[in-house]
Amino acid sequence: MSSLKKQSSSLTEKAGISSPEITNVSAINQIKNKRRQQPSASELISGILSGNITALSRAITLIESTNPDHAAKADEIIKGCLLHANKSIRIGITGVPGVGKSTFIEAFGTYLTQAGKKVAVLAVDPSSSISHGSILGDKTRMEELVKDENAFIRPSASGENLGGVARKTRETIILCEAAGFDTIIIETVGVGQSETAVHSMVDFFLLLKISGAGDELQGIKRGIMEMADAIVINKADGDNIKKANQAKLEFNRALHLFPPKKSNWQPKVTTCSAITKEGISEIWNTISDYFELTKETGFFQEKRNEQNQFWMMETINEQLKQNFYNQPEIISLLEQNKKAVQNNEISPFAAAQLLLNQYKKSF
Amino acid sequence: MSSLKKQSSSLTEKAGISSPEITNVSAINQIKNKRRQQPSASELISGILSGNITALSRAITLIESTNPDHAAKADEIIKGCLLHANKSIRIGITGVPGVGKSTFIEAFGTYLTQAGKKVAVLAVDPSSSISHGSILGDKTRMEELVKDENAFIRPSASGENLGGVARKTRETIILCEAAGFDTIIIETVGVGQSETAVHSMVDFFLLLKISGAGDELQGIKRGIMEMADAIVINKADGDNIKKANQAKLEFNRALHLFPPKKSNWQPKVTTCSAITKEGISEIWNTISDYFELTKETGFFQEKRNEQNQFWMMETINEQLKQNFYNQPEIISLLEQNKKAVQNNEISPFAAAQLLLNQYKKSF
Repeated sequence: MSSLKKQSSSLTEKAGISSPEITNVSAINQIKNKRRQQPSASELISGILSGNITALSRAITLIESTNPDHAAKADEIIKGCLLHANKSIRIGITGVPGVGKSTFIEAFGTYLTQAGKKVAVLAVDPSSSISHGSILGDKTRMEELVKDENAFIRPSASGENLGGVARKTRETIILCEAAGFDTIIIETVGVGQSETAVHSMVDFFLLLKISGAGDELQGIKRGIMEMADAIVINKADGDNIKKANQAKLEFNRALHLFPPKKSNWQPKVTTCSAITKEGISEIWNTISDYFELTKETGFFQEKRNEQNQFWMMETINEQLKQNFYNQPEIISLLEQNKKAVQNNEISPFAAAQLLLNQYKKSF
Repeated sequence: MSSLKKQSSSLTEKAGISSPEITNVSAINQIKNKRRQQPSASELISGILSGNITALSRAITLIESTNPDHAAKADEIIKGCLLHANKSIRIGITGVPGVGKSTFIEAFGTYLTQAGKKVAVLAVDPSSSISHGSILGDKTRMEELVKDENAFIRPSASGENLGGVARKTRETIILCEAAGFDTIIIETVGVGQSETAVHSMVDFFLLLKISGAGDELQGIKRGIMEMADAIVINKADGDNIKKANQAKLEFNRALHLFPPKKSNWQPKVTTCSAITKEGISEIWNTISDYFELTKETGFFQEKRNEQNQFWMMETINEQLKQNFYNQPEIISLLEQNKKAVQNNEISPFAAAQLLLNQYKKSF
């Protein structure tokens, strides 16, 4: 109606012929319906099991979704994939920004696919919900691997907390394994406790470093060196080779100070250049040695069992805490009691008891 | 009545005179009543505040008791003491058996009381419920300190778990401080996580070592060196002096590898002999320097506040877990799900969710 109310303007146009329909209505509706119709869980499962990357990506998106319907569907898919999973090796890679993590993974991953492996690269980056996916976000740094049909790269799930991000990555591992990926690489930039989280979901943990001002060991995060099964000094090329070798010596000496690992594996230090590809095959040899040893001793399976139990208990414990600390009454009572404890009006234990009694009443 | 029914025996006796009362009945009853009548909480509080050691000991016994009535009374006493507590320095001492911990504490404690300090020595030994108080149990190794009226020695509380033992020790600290002890020494032999527990209730953490086979750093428990504010190499006497000095060098080099502490304190390594008393005063100087620095920067109070918050939250979290894992239905369901997770029948997260749903139903 409003189109009939013409403006009185000097620019007018005669009514022409009506514009033709660009295509028929039923065809449009058919396309719309198809788009609306998501594949079912069992469709996605069989897609994943046949190695279909689109099905894998869609299922991962369901895992990452905050929609409760998606969560139920994701659980069904994970269940369907579980028995086909676990046939892989899982490698964690950590290193601060600047050590050339993406370039290293590009070189290492390409080396692996050329050796006939199927490689999935995932990430645990709890900061990505703020920075919108800093890790792997820039896939251009992995030009070759992105195009490689035997590689699958997926940026970090985003989530409010590390626990959530870690859970999503761990479930994604299951799907990737079911889709036939035999080498899973999980990278982390080491925000908060993310190295610990990654360490507890991989078989082998690799710390990437570069040689610096000669005092290589300063500033390494607590416990990080103790978790490492290998330390790789990257950028060992050109003028850097000598410095990298010195760093190697220093790390070797430092590793010697730690008590022996439960795996009986003596962590190795190597140098490499992700640019010249020098040292990449040696790293793979080291990793292969590790898997040979730990599969022979049974440590490999033992560690995976422990990790599974750990994640089960961890999920329970986290949830119990969340249920408690998210109660509105508890939130305000906690603040009061924190102050009272600080002013020595109540002991930490009496305050805790008071809060727990209040919580019990709320059921 | 039954005494009248005499046995027919060849051995009989004529009824003689009745035996005299050994003392009068009312006196006996008075003693009995007095024994039955425990001092009230407020009596114990005023006793503690006036420095009465008997009152202090009795109150600690209430803290350690598993009787719920005692617990309520203990809470009242702690509350009454809280505002008079906290005016002390708290020093944690750890070291494996054989480093001469008792002898060191004897020498160090005596040095302190001679300098006018009032010293309380407590212990955290979660193994003591099995070994019935291995630590400090043998007070004969602290002959001098036991007789010292400015020293108070109390063995570790016993308890099923570290959490319980730690709580009791932490509450005992409050009472000791209220009783006027200005220097609290907490020792631990380092069973399980007990060093971490002690570290989180003291201001200063001292690691006691002896020089060994030259490879001093091997076998030191994870994280222990990072917690230490000072490492003291004991038994630096006679033929051992040279070895002790070498160990000192090695530890100093190793400490250099760690990132700087939040306190801005650079941990010190010293040698001493608890026998010759050589080096004891230097240790005290180091500790005094630490307190001067951290009180000036505010780190001292900041750390105490953090510790209080930590213990409040820790108590809550532990209790939430206990409530969950002690539920009979949860116990059996957990076992089932552990097996299912191990057989890849269910993911760790799905299993956790299943258990949490069951728990929710039980309310």
